[in-house]
Amino acid sequence: MQYNIKITISYDGTRYLGWQRLGGRDRVRSIQGCLEAALEQVIGCRIRIVGSGRTDAGVHAKGQVANFRVPSALLRCNSKEQLRQWMHACNEILPEDIKISSMVQVASDFHSRYSAKKKTYVYQVDTGDKARVFGRKYRLWYPKPLDMERMRRAARKLEGIHDFSAFCTRSEEREDCERTLYELRIDTDGSLVSFTLTADGFLYNMVRILVGTLLEIGEGTRGEETMQKAFQTGDRQLVGKTVAGKGLCLEQVYY
Amino acid sequence: MQYNIKITISYDGTRYLGWQRLGGRDRVRSIQGCLEAALEQVIGCRIRIVGSGRTDAGVHAKGQVANFRVPSALLRCNSKEQLRQWMHACNEILPEDIKISSMVQVASDFHSRYSAKKKTYVYQVDTGDKARVFGRKYRLWYPKPLDMERMRRAARKLEGIHDFSAFCTRSEEREDCERTLYELRIDTDGSLVSFTLTADGFLYNMVRILVGTLLEIGEGTRGEETMQKAFQTGDRQLVGKTVAGKGLCLEQVYY
Repeated sequence: MQYNIKITISYDGTRYLGWQRLGGRDRVRSIQGCLEAALEQVIGCRIRIVGSGRTDAGVHAKGQVANFRVPSALLRCNSKEQLRQWMHACNEILPEDIKISSMVQVASDFHSRYSAKKKTYVYQVDTGDKARVFGRKYRLWYPKPLDMERMRRAARKLEGIHDFSAFCTRSEEREDCERTLYELRIDTDGSLVSFTLTADGFLYNMVRILVGTLLEIGEGTRGEETMQKAFQTGDRQLVGKTVAGKGLCLEQVYY
Repeated sequence: MQYNIKITISYDGTRYLGWQRLGGRDRVRSIQGCLEAALEQVIGCRIRIVGSGRTDAGVHAKGQVANFRVPSALLRCNSKEQLRQWMHACNEILPEDIKISSMVQVASDFHSRYSAKKKTYVYQVDTGDKARVFGRKYRLWYPKPLDMERMRRAARKLEGIHDFSAFCTRSEEREDCERTLYELRIDTDGSLVSFTLTADGFLYNMVRILVGTLLEIGEGTRGEETMQKAFQTGDRQLVGKTVAGKGLCLEQVYY
């Protein structure tokens, strides 16, 4: 018999090639690889974790979720306390840019990806005319004047149920590209602009392409009719650039 | 004839051996060395900058100030615009963890160190039981329960004019150790504790020793009578440890 364990993880993606485990010596250059190595060392058996989704190189997370199974014989009756000890032991082994914030036992049918109801990502942009030292690894520096009203109007057109084919980097197999974008909020704090997106799921590079498109609309190099055309045609060429990974953070996964 | 130029700088000290220029290949491992190299490349003559004070390895700054002199022949009549151009050109050359936020011409008798009236430093501590990923390079992780009231009472005893001999790492020559600590404020935000200190000057390691002492008083391993005894005797052994440089940031220099 096996128990199913859910972990919540935060990481600074700057140094990593992304979430997904890579082979050989590159194992330690992925978040998944680092987590599995720490868990195996603490628990003492082979561990394979499943994440709620892959994050790309340089992308951060404050609330990534993953789950894994352990033979029930390894968990004592007071599993809560033991899981707390495992978490602390893992955090001692893990590098300072990856930490587990919770480790709990869940129902055997819980799956970090398939059970997820929705996710929230935040993308941060600094529009100041001077590059800033602090926060530079978590924000795209974009020193251009932006028409916030124009961007917010465009953002409202993105909310709802749409086929987001135009707003993703295609993988080989065709997949269903309909997603529900519950909210796309744009907040400002001085020269900082943050985009908060909540959806039932995101396609590959979807947040970064949506933000890239909104920035181009905000600076006036792309028309406000972009969204409608893109939804109609599904043409990636009609929308904006994929902005850098470093501005992106997976905030929370909802179950 | 020479003009006197004042620059304000922010830097992330993580990668550096400190403010002070070092010889040879280590020049690029000091903040001063990096700034001088960039200024020389942009201005086209030898530049020696004087900082308001040295910061140690790992210590950060949001408002460090320095000044340097340039032959007046190198500055055109519209010096304001030219200085703005120099600043932007320097920022293009400088690494992403050092940036100049202002560059202005000042009176010939301005001296970044001797003209300074007071300085503000902030020291940040995270008392949460789990190490945090974000902000880890700017905070000391100190997962212990702290009695804030006890710490604030002790902080109030440090404010005012005192001989801070006990609260510094002695340099070889004896110097006058009387300083006026205008304010030592302790703020909390969840598990984050920040110490904001404003004084007419700070001795070597003074902020880090004051914070180290307050933390030990807060956790109860050091008595509240520490301050009085330390001021009376000037004995470094009576006060707390020098806490890590990474929690420290030079916020502002006042003239």
